[in-house]
Amino acid sequence: MELTFLGTGSCYPTPTRGVSCIALKHEAQCWLFDCGEGSQIQLMKSNVKPGRIRKIFITHLHGDHLFGLPGLLCTISQNSSADREPVELYGPVGLRRFIRVALELSRSLLGFNYIVHELVPLDDAIAVAERLPESDKLWQPRHDAEGLCHPNEIPGGRMISCDSSNIWHIGNFGALSIAAAPLSHRVPCFGYCISESEIPGKLNVELLRSKGILPGPLYGKLKNGEAIVAPNGEIVTTEEALGPPTPGRKIVILGDTSESIRITSIAQNCDVLVHEATNEDELQETTIKNGHSTPTMAGQFATKVNAATLILTHVSQRYKTNSSTLGDGEVPVAKLAKQASACFTGKVIVAEDLFCFSIPLKRR
Amino acid sequence: MELTFLGTGSCYPTPTRGVSCIALKHEAQCWLFDCGEGSQIQLMKSNVKPGRIRKIFITHLHGDHLFGLPGLLCTISQNSSADREPVELYGPVGLRRFIRVALELSRSLLGFNYIVHELVPLDDAIAVAERLPESDKLWQPRHDAEGLCHPNEIPGGRMISCDSSNIWHIGNFGALSIAAAPLSHRVPCFGYCISESEIPGKLNVELLRSKGILPGPLYGKLKNGEAIVAPNGEIVTTEEALGPPTPGRKIVILGDTSESIRITSIAQNCDVLVHEATNEDELQETTIKNGHSTPTMAGQFATKVNAATLILTHVSQRYKTNSSTLGDGEVPVAKLAKQASACFTGKVIVAEDLFCFSIPLKRR
Repeated sequence: MELTFLGTGSCYPTPTRGVSCIALKHEAQCWLFDCGEGSQIQLMKSNVKPGRIRKIFITHLHGDHLFGLPGLLCTISQNSSADREPVELYGPVGLRRFIRVALELSRSLLGFNYIVHELVPLDDAIAVAERLPESDKLWQPRHDAEGLCHPNEIPGGRMISCDSSNIWHIGNFGALSIAAAPLSHRVPCFGYCISESEIPGKLNVELLRSKGILPGPLYGKLKNGEAIVAPNGEIVTTEEALGPPTPGRKIVILGDTSESIRITSIAQNCDVLVHEATNEDELQETTIKNGHSTPTMAGQFATKVNAATLILTHVSQRYKTNSSTLGDGEVPVAKLAKQASACFTGKVIVAEDLFCFSIPLKRR
Repeated sequence: MELTFLGTGSCYPTPTRGVSCIALKHEAQCWLFDCGEGSQIQLMKSNVKPGRIRKIFITHLHGDHLFGLPGLLCTISQNSSADREPVELYGPVGLRRFIRVALELSRSLLGFNYIVHELVPLDDAIAVAERLPESDKLWQPRHDAEGLCHPNEIPGGRMISCDSSNIWHIGNFGALSIAAAPLSHRVPCFGYCISESEIPGKLNVELLRSKGILPGPLYGKLKNGEAIVAPNGEIVTTEEALGPPTPGRKIVILGDTSESIRITSIAQNCDVLVHEATNEDELQETTIKNGHSTPTMAGQFATKVNAATLILTHVSQRYKTNSSTLGDGEVPVAKLAKQASACFTGKVIVAEDLFCFSIPLKRR
C-alpha cells in the first residue's frame, strides 16, 4: 500500500509543484484522488502505471483538482486494452456534466467505458458556495448533465448521505472500503477515508503438525474460518490455528478544508492523514477566509484523530524546498512542517511532487 | 516578432514535449495559438509573460489543443490588474460552451473579462466530424452554450466566411491582421494567417536638410503621409522624403491537417509556415486517415505557398531529439526534418518545446 504524490501545489501548477493529484496503490490496483491540470504528465514521471487506474475520486470541482481529468481519461485510453474494466469516477454533483461536455466537445471517444457516481452535497455546503459577490447572484452553476450519455458513459447514480452522521458510505471494493465526509470549503468538498480489511493471521503450522494435521485442504478450511477435526478426533478452531490477524490500514485524504469536524469519526486512528496546509500559521485569517488550512490546523486535526503520520500537501507556491535560492516573499517549506509538529507528536512530512510513502503493516 | 513553441507534441503531453501551444509576441502584446493541457506550466518556463496575452486562437476543439485553456485563464487571473483589457478567444463553434461550463462548474471567477468569438465551420467540415462509428451516430455534440453568461463573459459573436474563397477575415488589430481558413481534419479545424502591415521607410534627413527642412513638426507630417512645403516653396511629398517601406511579415500557423488547399491563397509568400508533421513519411496512409500530415506533405505545402521557413510541430511522442537513447519504436526527430527538406528548398526546423524563432524584418 503506497501513496504517490503527483501534485502538491495549491491553486495553479508550476514546474516544481503540480496541482492536486495523489495515487494510492494497493495490490494490482490504483486509485487516484483529484486530478489537477498536468496530472497525466506527473504520472509519466512516476512509477504509477496509468493502465492500473480503476477509480478516481474528486474532492471538489475547483480547477486545480479537476482540470486534468478529461486529458487523463483520453491518455489512459491510448494504452488501454479492449477488455479494460470501466473506470469509476466519484465526486460532487456536477462532475458528470464537466466530463461529458469536455469529452463531447473534443469528440473524444475512449477505449474503455466510464461511470460517474456523484455525491450530493449537504444543503449547508451548497449555501456556502452560493455566497458569491452581489453582482453575480444570478449566476448559479447548473450541475445536471444534459443531453445523451457520452458513448463511453455507463449511467451512474447519485449518492446521498444516508445516516445522521453525514457519512457517504461509497462501497467495499475487495480488501478496501471507502467512505466520504464533507469538509468546509468555498465549494462543496469531501474528504475520503480508505479502510483496509483485517489481514488474517498465518496458520500455526507447528501446532497443526503436532496434532497430526498435514498441509492440504484442511488448511484451506481453517483459513476460511471453518473448524476442522484432527486425526485424534479433537476439534481445531480457526482461533486456535491462526496467528493473530493484522489490523487493516486506514488512510484519510482530505480535500481543501478550513474545518473538518464531520470527518473526525471515520478518520480516527488512521495510519496516514493527508491534510492540506496552504499557508503558514501567520496567514491564518486569510487562509481560513479562503477555505484553507494552516500547518497548526492540520496538526491539531491529526492529534484529534490520533493519526500516526501527517502528510501536508496543497502547499502555496510561495513555499520553496530549496531554501538557498529564496526569492522575494518566498519561505522555506520546512517552516510548515515545524509549525505542524508543534501541535502533533506523530511524524510530519511535507509532500513534494513524486514523493512516495509506503504504509507499513501494523504490528500488534 | 517572435514565436515561442510552448508545446510541440501530438495527442498527449509528456515531460519532454507538451501539447500544442504557440505564443506570438509582437511589440508589447502576445497572442496564443492553441492551449493544450499544461500550457500554463510551459509558459512559466518560457520568457512569455502571461499578463501580456490579449488573444487566444484555437485551431480546433481536440483536447490536446484545448484542455489547458480554462486553467490558463484562471492562472492569468491570479496576476491580473483590475484594469486589464478583456482576453479575446477565437475558435470553432463549441468553444464558448466549453469555457463557460469549465469556469461555471469550477466556480472560477476571473480578475478580467473574456469574449469568445466563434468561427462557424463549413458544412463539409462538420460532415467529416459526424462520420462517427455506427454505434455512436446518435451522439452529436451540442455546441450552443446554454444558460446565462459567466459573470466575466462579455457576449461575443459567431463569424462566418463571408466570401466564396472561404476565408474568415477575423480583424485588424494594430499593425497585425489575422484571417483563418479551414483545413481538413477529423473535426472542424482552422489555420491562421497573421499579416503585419507595411513598415514605413525612414525619413531621408540628408535630403530634407539639403532643402532647408529641419527636424520639427514638418517631419511628423511627412511620416503621416502629408506633403509639405520647403522654405524655397518647393512641395516635398512623402514618396520623396521617405525611404522605401519594409514589407510586413506574414506568419501562417496551421492546426491539425491532412489537406490545406483552402488556406493556400492567404498563405502565399509567408515568412514562416508552422505546419504539423505528426508522423514520418513511411506512415503516410494512417497519418492521412487520422487527419494528419507527414514531413513531405508539410514540405510540399511550404513549397506551394513559397514559404521562407518551415517549422514542423505536433510531432508524435515516438520521435526523440536525443537519438543516443532511443527506445523500441522510437525514431530520431531529425528524420522528419530530412524528409521535409527533400521537397522544400527553404529552411526547415523541427520545433522543440520552448524553442524561440525571431522573424527578421524583410530586406528589400
